[in-house]
Amino acid sequence: MTEIQCKFCKIIEKKEKAVILFEDKKIIAILDNKPFNRGHTLILPKKHYKFITDIPDREVGYIFKNVNRIAKAIFSSVKADGLNISQNNGEIASQTIFHVHVHIIPRFKNDTKSNKFPSRKHFTIRELRKSGKYIQEVLNTSSFE
Amino acid sequence: MTEIQCKFCKIIEKKEKAVILFEDKKIIAILDNKPFNRGHTLILPKKHYKFITDIPDREVGYIFKNVNRIAKAIFSSVKADGLNISQNNGEIASQTIFHVHVHIIPRFKNDTKSNKFPSRKHFTIRELRKSGKYIQEVLNTSSFE
Repeated sequence: MTEIQCKFCKIIEKKEKAVILFEDKKIIAILDNKPFNRGHTLILPKKHYKFITDIPDREVGYIFKNVNRIAKAIFSSVKADGLNISQNNGEIASQTIFHVHVHIIPRFKNDTKSNKFPSRKHFTIRELRKSGKYIQEVLNTSSFE
Repeated sequence: MTEIQCKFCKIIEKKEKAVILFEDKKIIAILDNKPFNRGHTLILPKKHYKFITDIPDREVGYIFKNVNRIAKAIFSSVKADGLNISQNNGEIASQTIFHVHVHIIPRFKNDTKSNKFPSRKHFTIRELRKSGKYIQEVLNTSSFE
């Protein structure tokens, strides 16, 4: 199901560019283009859903089985010290694109002085592709555990 | 596997009190005792793991299949306007209890003025049990979708 105005649907249909780390029939993993840190990844179902609670439970299970596999690849390839996994539903919950997506945000010692997320960064597409390449290399040799 | 000093392992073994919304052989869902909002729930594997990336991918899938079912019950029973789902790994990522847990945080219009989480609240055990009761009633009649 396609939503004409949806940025993520356009990426899924290859009508808009993104650094794609992984995709299969059901899901796609891309680098966030304004990442909190290098390796900040979004995993989304290819089918357009607004909120996670709109998705059948088994599909959510499938998404997160993949989130874990991809999180491990990110963790080791960017040598993170920590990892936030988050998924926001609704404007009050900071959702800005209304197509379900799961954030995997690598964290590094001293990346923020407060208890908050670091600020969003403006990496060039070249820098994004470089960190994407490292993650892809690890992902290509990984399987479900 | 039990970790003697772990607060969550003690709850799982019923050596420490908590408002339990759901449990089976593998997972347990409890109300956060200092919730950001009413209905703030934690879902955790009964086996002690420090980080989500320590868990086999299929078990993570099982946890989140349940997270979604429970999130739907919370959403409707507390009449939330939004929902944050988050899971933190490592001190830099704000993990404070080192036993994997997933937060389901209901959000309400105007619950914060900034783009942050609302502050933690101090509900009495009676208030906690009351909101837990509503969620349990919905959960008891729900099944996987």
